[in-house]
Amino acid sequence: MSEQTPLDPAAGDTPGLPESDSIGLSEGDPFGLPEGDPFGPHNLPYGVFSLAGERTDQRRVGVRLGSYVLDAGAAAAALGSPYVSLLARPTLNALLSAGRTAWSDVRRALTAWVTVPSYRDSVRPLLHPLSDVTLHLPFEVADYVDFYASENHATNLGKMFRPDSPTPLTPNWKHLPIGYHGRSGTVVVSGTDVVRPSGQRKAPSDTAPVFGPSVRLDIEAEVGFVVGAPSTHGTPVPLADFREHVFGLTLLNDWSARDIQAWEYVPLGPFLGKSFATSVSAWITPLDALDAARVAPPERTHQLLPYLDDSAESATDEPGGYDLRMTVTLNGHVISEPPFSTVYWTAAQQLAHMTVNGASLRTGDLYGSGTVSGPSAGQYGSLIEITWNGRDPLELPDGKRTFLEDGDEVTLSAWAPGPDGTKVGLGEVTGRIVAAR
Amino acid sequence: MSEQTPLDPAAGDTPGLPESDSIGLSEGDPFGLPEGDPFGPHNLPYGVFSLAGERTDQRRVGVRLGSYVLDAGAAAAALGSPYVSLLARPTLNALLSAGRTAWSDVRRALTAWVTVPSYRDSVRPLLHPLSDVTLHLPFEVADYVDFYASENHATNLGKMFRPDSPTPLTPNWKHLPIGYHGRSGTVVVSGTDVVRPSGQRKAPSDTAPVFGPSVRLDIEAEVGFVVGAPSTHGTPVPLADFREHVFGLTLLNDWSARDIQAWEYVPLGPFLGKSFATSVSAWITPLDALDAARVAPPERTHQLLPYLDDSAESATDEPGGYDLRMTVTLNGHVISEPPFSTVYWTAAQQLAHMTVNGASLRTGDLYGSGTVSGPSAGQYGSLIEITWNGRDPLELPDGKRTFLEDGDEVTLSAWAPGPDGTKVGLGEVTGRIVAAR
Repeated sequence: MSEQTPLDPAAGDTPGLPESDSIGLSEGDPFGLPEGDPFGPHNLPYGVFSLAGERTDQRRVGVRLGSYVLDAGAAAAALGSPYVSLLARPTLNALLSAGRTAWSDVRRALTAWVTVPSYRDSVRPLLHPLSDVTLHLPFEVADYVDFYASENHATNLGKMFRPDSPTPLTPNWKHLPIGYHGRSGTVVVSGTDVVRPSGQRKAPSDTAPVFGPSVRLDIEAEVGFVVGAPSTHGTPVPLADFREHVFGLTLLNDWSARDIQAWEYVPLGPFLGKSFATSVSAWITPLDALDAARVAPPERTHQLLPYLDDSAESATDEPGGYDLRMTVTLNGHVISEPPFSTVYWTAAQQLAHMTVNGASLRTGDLYGSGTVSGPSAGQYGSLIEITWNGRDPLELPDGKRTFLEDGDEVTLSAWAPGPDGTKVGLGEVTGRIVAAR
Repeated sequence: MSEQTPLDPAAGDTPGLPESDSIGLSEGDPFGLPEGDPFGPHNLPYGVFSLAGERTDQRRVGVRLGSYVLDAGAAAAALGSPYVSLLARPTLNALLSAGRTAWSDVRRALTAWVTVPSYRDSVRPLLHPLSDVTLHLPFEVADYVDFYASENHATNLGKMFRPDSPTPLTPNWKHLPIGYHGRSGTVVVSGTDVVRPSGQRKAPSDTAPVFGPSVRLDIEAEVGFVVGAPSTHGTPVPLADFREHVFGLTLLNDWSARDIQAWEYVPLGPFLGKSFATSVSAWITPLDALDAARVAPPERTHQLLPYLDDSAESATDEPGGYDLRMTVTLNGHVISEPPFSTVYWTAAQQLAHMTVNGASLRTGDLYGSGTVSGPSAGQYGSLIEITWNGRDPLELPDGKRTFLEDGDEVTLSAWAPGPDGTKVGLGEVTGRIVAAR
């Protein structure tokens, strides 16, 4: 599969926001950002890039500013910064493993480099237009876990798949964040084509399974959390240590073949229905850029066991939810706007649960929130919910859709409230379906 | 957790076989193996070792001969072999990624080095007694998948957990090898202590879940297959290419907390009930050492879809099963002898299924067979089967057991038929339960 082609800087990737990228470009000054640019110095997400024609081993850490990418390691070297050892690297893993104090220090330095005039003169030649770079998978994924943390999503799927059940949620749902391990080797960067998977499926009326390309290929609009600092095998990570271990977040599309999944998943869970591809943004937004976006999670309806009980925390100024306003587009048409603030289980609870049995964290562990669905129909994060299992097709300018067709392109984007009324843009994640081989 | 301490060479690790190790040691000649030694030159499994007092970065590839370990990279260097680049390494990954032709060539060279008298003189000083070395996790685990391929095991669990179901197997079981992804970050080498996991559990009679150390901690006696050569994302690996990608196999204990698993696993499968630890042997046996152990798998009762249909293959001289005779000991007492030849789905079928949706393989991918259980009670690969969900406790000299108690030590060992009437020993995998933290 090809990696991401250069973005069209004029296209922007945050619907509903001012198209600042083109303004910045036309002025030819990377620091000439319009006021309110969602990728201003208050954001500074991290990625990995190379320039056209460079060899694979020329990949290096980049930091996004407007529609430019700062060669962060080169900037550190030019300014004599000690962080060159964390930034002049082919992936983010060295920075991720350095831990919370280093993350804050590096971010403070980067902020200075792009805001203090004397530094700006030094780093100006090290800023490359997004249109000139190729973006790569920004970190080596260790273990990948996917949760199922949106109550609306789990309720919708319960209604569809267990219509005879007295309650759409399984009995465990409100007591623990349900999750499972996915395939880390098929996590791909935004812009990578997704080959339609083939596999077994069996309709209830069929006497035997049939084999072929999935005919119910779906998206799952999620947020992925990236672990930086590892933990000790045998020792759980408490709720309060969330920010000591988690570096940042990224948009994530957990592509799902519903027909393959339905036939295979009892009793051991999803496998081939998910493992063909999971797309993440090329940009990892540090949690430090999202302090203004923290919100209380939904009210808990059940008393939680102590290791998951965040009711004390949520009364402080560090609540566990994040107010991320997500948008899903299909071939450029907005089809949903899932609100991440409605997700029941927080990322800190997911981390505490994932490690409560002593499982260790490694640098590069990635965990997804599960499909983000708000309470109303315009806020669902998957086509199976949007079309209610295919019953209510989407009417798009280019035709009806129940599930994805070959050639369809899906893009997830989002923004969050930033400091002082700004907006923090999250890097988009996009992928196009190509025909089964 | 501590890594494996030096083995007691006098103990042997293949019950029922001649205790050749002590004979070899007492003679002080690594080449003085008694006839029929299961770790003779016909075997030559690979591991990674260091000597007492060495730094972590001194780890290197070793090849087992009797009760000695050959420093393989040093031998290659001493003999001017080009394979030094594959063998003078801290893990097996370079060798794994080199592919089938290199695997055969390296094995042929190693066989010569330990059998041809002139080579023997050169490598003799590079053989270290097992008692002098520390063995490490021999490869970097990429993705870890666990299957559920033993019909007897799946039937036993179906009877226990779904007693009202008309059939103990789920409808998909005979059509595809059911599997799921596990946590690769908690795969540990034989000898590593296993901390008893804590988690949520809920008996049907409880009104809410409780939290605490698992009280139903179990083993799963499995065989793990190690992927060497990677595959292309989007392109399935057919049955016939199994040996192009899979380098070898190892014994594997997929520790399982049955109480945690029972409460969490609907609808997305096992998670914390398994992710706290998976133990593998320190030794990877190359498939090339097991040609004499190939046997036809059990007769197929259902017509398989073409990508899984091995009926043509099984009529050739390369059948898909392996005749591995496994033994499970608990605190030194034999509690079961699972026959791997009874497993329904072959490793080649598992590989073909795992990739049929286009999921790619990476060097270091590990997949387990699932618990190996034979048809009779003395052949079950888990305590939940041996004690029939705790109903029939095991009577051991040191007391009754339903599930594992703190301090219990479990060891899996195995042998397979080798060429010319020899036996091929597999490296044991052992682990001891320590109290929850």
